[in-house]
Amino acid sequence: MINEYQQKFMGASTKQGYDIATKSREIIRDLIDDEIEDLNIVEKDIIERIVHSSADPEYAKLVKISPNFVDEAIKSMKNNETLLTDINMVKAGITQYDGDVECYIKNDEVKKIAKDEQITRAAAAIKYAANEGFEGILVSGNAPTAVWQAMDLFYKGKINLKAIIGVPVGFVGAADCKNALSMSSIPNIITQGPKGGTPIAVACVNSLIQNLRL
Amino acid sequence: MINEYQQKFMGASTKQGYDIATKSREIIRDLIDDEIEDLNIVEKDIIERIVHSSADPEYAKLVKISPNFVDEAIKSMKNNETLLTDINMVKAGITQYDGDVECYIKNDEVKKIAKDEQITRAAAAIKYAANEGFEGILVSGNAPTAVWQAMDLFYKGKINLKAIIGVPVGFVGAADCKNALSMSSIPNIITQGPKGGTPIAVACVNSLIQNLRL
Repeated sequence: MINEYQQKFMGASTKQGYDIATKSREIIRDLIDDEIEDLNIVEKDIIERIVHSSADPEYAKLVKISPNFVDEAIKSMKNNETLLTDINMVKAGITQYDGDVECYIKNDEVKKIAKDEQITRAAAAIKYAANEGFEGILVSGNAPTAVWQAMDLFYKGKINLKAIIGVPVGFVGAADCKNALSMSSIPNIITQGPKGGTPIAVACVNSLIQNLRL
Repeated sequence: MINEYQQKFMGASTKQGYDIATKSREIIRDLIDDEIEDLNIVEKDIIERIVHSSADPEYAKLVKISPNFVDEAIKSMKNNETLLTDINMVKAGITQYDGDVECYIKNDEVKKIAKDEQITRAAAAIKYAANEGFEGILVSGNAPTAVWQAMDLFYKGKINLKAIIGVPVGFVGAADCKNALSMSSIPNIITQGPKGGTPIAVACVNSLIQNLRL
């Protein structure tokens, strides 16, 4: 008798929700077990949850997790460091984290930086966060420019960045930024190619949050 | 000289954003033009935007739009009727609508209904909305139970529902509810099979909003 829904397994808030989540996991394991057999238990959970959130087993092939990602991300999140999201839709999906979840894309100062420097608001928001003393993890489901900006600041020693969940979606620019990130020394998780997006980013975060509590 | 980014084409708020969105559309048209050639211009735009938001051309095959959907949805949205979302992540993606965008899943009364009636909070939120005089469109990217509940109330004449954007994701229950919805007389858009989710729902809404303004 663990329950109250097996510690809110995959966000289940009712018995019915828990049963659906459990059955979904069984189906997913049948579909992708072979692809992920060499991963550790946390990495497997991340990928299963991504496939659950997208109903797209192809993600088992597309997700790449750097060897230092899980340890560094868990360490940062155990310290309740900030999760910085690129868009508010990603922020809206993260409801169970004990630390701050921030998104600055609509901040007036960010809009000014974007205009003055002729960069996207997503990139300007990363600069703004770095200036404000951000320390934690970037969670990007949408904007390659946010990931490029974060990498640039990281290599200049100007941002206290512990990991990047870098899964922006799109046919233009997304794959390139994720390739670059996966080759970097920053602890990272990416999806190869154009696919990715909000649910993928959120699934990764929520898997980590659940693992924090085990 | 239309511009200020061609009336915010696909949410672009900068010239750079507009250029990316335009190039993305060209790539998407090359990928899916044959699949969608029989659709009208608004339906094509919805599907292109869904593929843009997911980078997944398979959606051109999976999306099914009922013949009455576009007209009824546009009519409702021109009257600024409410968009009722099943989860807050969907709500967070709809930032340009002139009417109300509501999500009741965290409402205390909804939690009580869910507990008393042993139904999901997503279903309880639909009941609550109907009781509160909701009139408009259900936008579901997550919860099959929200769609089932809305259909049930519709056929009992207990909800003033003009259309359903019904694209919940998942291996358990999602496909069944979408099949049922697509066979109903309710104006609807669905994705066949398990795939769907927040970005798909949001892309559909944002395409309609853009078309309202043309």
